[in-house]
Amino acid sequence: MSTFHVKDLRTFSTEVLAALGVKSEEAETVSDALLRANLEGVDSHGLSRLVVYSNRLKDDRINPAPNIRFEQRGASVLTVDGDNGLGHVVSSKAVEKGMELAIESGMAGISIKNSNHFGTASYYCQMACEKNLAAIAFTNSPPGIAPWGGRQAFFGTNPIAFGFPNGSKPPVIIDLSTSVVARGKIILADKQGESIPDGWALDEEGQVTNDPGKALTGSVLPLGGAKGFALALAVEILSGVLSGAAFGPNVNSIYQEASKTPANVGHFFILMDIEKFMPHETFQQSMEQLIHQMKETPKAPGFEEIRYPGERRTKEFERRLEDGIPLTQSVQDELKSLGEAVNIPFPQPISSFNHSKA
Amino acid sequence: MSTFHVKDLRTFSTEVLAALGVKSEEAETVSDALLRANLEGVDSHGLSRLVVYSNRLKDDRINPAPNIRFEQRGASVLTVDGDNGLGHVVSSKAVEKGMELAIESGMAGISIKNSNHFGTASYYCQMACEKNLAAIAFTNSPPGIAPWGGRQAFFGTNPIAFGFPNGSKPPVIIDLSTSVVARGKIILADKQGESIPDGWALDEEGQVTNDPGKALTGSVLPLGGAKGFALALAVEILSGVLSGAAFGPNVNSIYQEASKTPANVGHFFILMDIEKFMPHETFQQSMEQLIHQMKETPKAPGFEEIRYPGERRTKEFERRLEDGIPLTQSVQDELKSLGEAVNIPFPQPISSFNHSKA
Repeated sequence: MSTFHVKDLRTFSTEVLAALGVKSEEAETVSDALLRANLEGVDSHGLSRLVVYSNRLKDDRINPAPNIRFEQRGASVLTVDGDNGLGHVVSSKAVEKGMELAIESGMAGISIKNSNHFGTASYYCQMACEKNLAAIAFTNSPPGIAPWGGRQAFFGTNPIAFGFPNGSKPPVIIDLSTSVVARGKIILADKQGESIPDGWALDEEGQVTNDPGKALTGSVLPLGGAKGFALALAVEILSGVLSGAAFGPNVNSIYQEASKTPANVGHFFILMDIEKFMPHETFQQSMEQLIHQMKETPKAPGFEEIRYPGERRTKEFERRLEDGIPLTQSVQDELKSLGEAVNIPFPQPISSFNHSKA
Repeated sequence: MSTFHVKDLRTFSTEVLAALGVKSEEAETVSDALLRANLEGVDSHGLSRLVVYSNRLKDDRINPAPNIRFEQRGASVLTVDGDNGLGHVVSSKAVEKGMELAIESGMAGISIKNSNHFGTASYYCQMACEKNLAAIAFTNSPPGIAPWGGRQAFFGTNPIAFGFPNGSKPPVIIDLSTSVVARGKIILADKQGESIPDGWALDEEGQVTNDPGKALTGSVLPLGGAKGFALALAVEILSGVLSGAAFGPNVNSIYQEASKTPANVGHFFILMDIEKFMPHETFQQSMEQLIHQMKETPKAPGFEEIRYPGERRTKEFERRLEDGIPLTQSVQDELKSLGEAVNIPFPQPISSFNHSKA
């Protein structure tokens, strides 16, 4: 494990993407989105993903120079065809344009088809919060969750995210998959030869399994049973059906090496202009009161503090901006090879330290 | 347990409410919403609630003749002050008006303050589906769920509901509380002297309890742990904060007999005009394909069929419309006394049958 300056990683990532045909401004967008995930401690959605994105750009399964088409319908609807571009590029541009509609009419509904993995859903909620808008973000993803009563992965782990501005305090950022656990945790357990607990996943026969390998060919359980299935379905309809993207098992995975089909991921965003509902100061005062009252609630055994969603990620963001971003040796190796293939040197670490698992 | 004609119960309910000062058209709205819940098998939100609503109308804690104020802001925002009217009346009128905005601009955001318990959130999604709109509904409610790390009920069991039209098939109707279990189930276990399973609730000390009495003075656990807490918070911000209603522990319960304060419940609705996103036929074809593919998924052990949310409630609706609505003896007794107090006779049952628990 070594630690790297954000600035150095940003240059590396941007240059790699540019070398693969992505416009430099759009390459910066992707790098910023990836590195924001690392800064916030969500390393699963950070720079380690650059490798798979680059592979898909190389084999023409993601379009490096998409002609993204936007159409406004009514005062509040923006439909977007991402032309198989990188999900971060398509979604950032769509949310930028959608924010104008929301500021004008109070609400915006943005549907996106022909897109790809867009990173963390929270990123787009944060964009909205910076403009004093509230946001809800949905995306579908390759099959992970079985329908309730089924034993085959069908829905993505379909996240829902919310963002609410919070004055000078970190925004409230809620970002959760509709599965019990991220598929990444099962992949990690499989790599490390560890078993997984009951209640995470089913095998191909629909039986609860503790074997991560069997879970990966089976399905991840939905959050809270049938309720999580219902939420995953709602996300699938908004992101996949209403946008005209692929849905359910028809969403392709960029991790399937053999495939040739674009992923055709769909996203859906709802933006709300707080000022249209009430004066911004009133909203902020009420947010402050809500969070204050919540934090004053008597603590449960084992808890010293009540935190709101978004609080910890902002703290981590500030810390890593200062201290740098840690990358495991295997991620460094992958990024180094990726850079070598396009003659972009991987940066030097700030510091190296041994980590028990490195 | 006896079974009653819907028509007879509707007349009874409407006349009781009218006798308590509710305009007959608005009394019909409340009756329709309550009886729809009964028809769909959601008896917890059905006619049994007429008793508490009536008590609050009698003691002036709910306004029988509210002057509901609507303000349109921008093309897509409707802010509503319910003037402490019955939640069903306030919400139905707001959704009616909001649908016009959504049809015009593509989206509507409706915030409501100074309201009361509005029954099932799904009812308003069904209204939208009948007009070929998709809908998301949120409401806060009196404290039930502790914040994550806390041991005192703070958030309501704050439901989220989605509605999607589905051609000639029953709409997809998702309606779920952000708690593991409805508080009503704990109340029932308490009445029947039964214990509750692990994972439902905490006592006042923040320890998992199997004693429903201790659970009722403690808190219900959120759906899927910290994720359910985050969802309950999002619902609270949309319904309570952004509407200007009460939020968190400041929402009053109509079941607290001693109180004098209005509940000041808040609701939030998002309506989406499908036609603005894509031709309605395309949407319906994709919905059909999604549901067909989902139903064809191999079944898990113990399941013969995969159903989508909303399917069962429509079947039950049709069955009970034909066969009548069953009411327990205790609900009948309560309704009879309620009717006697205002000289409205309670209807005769269609049929009576003995039920092991009646």
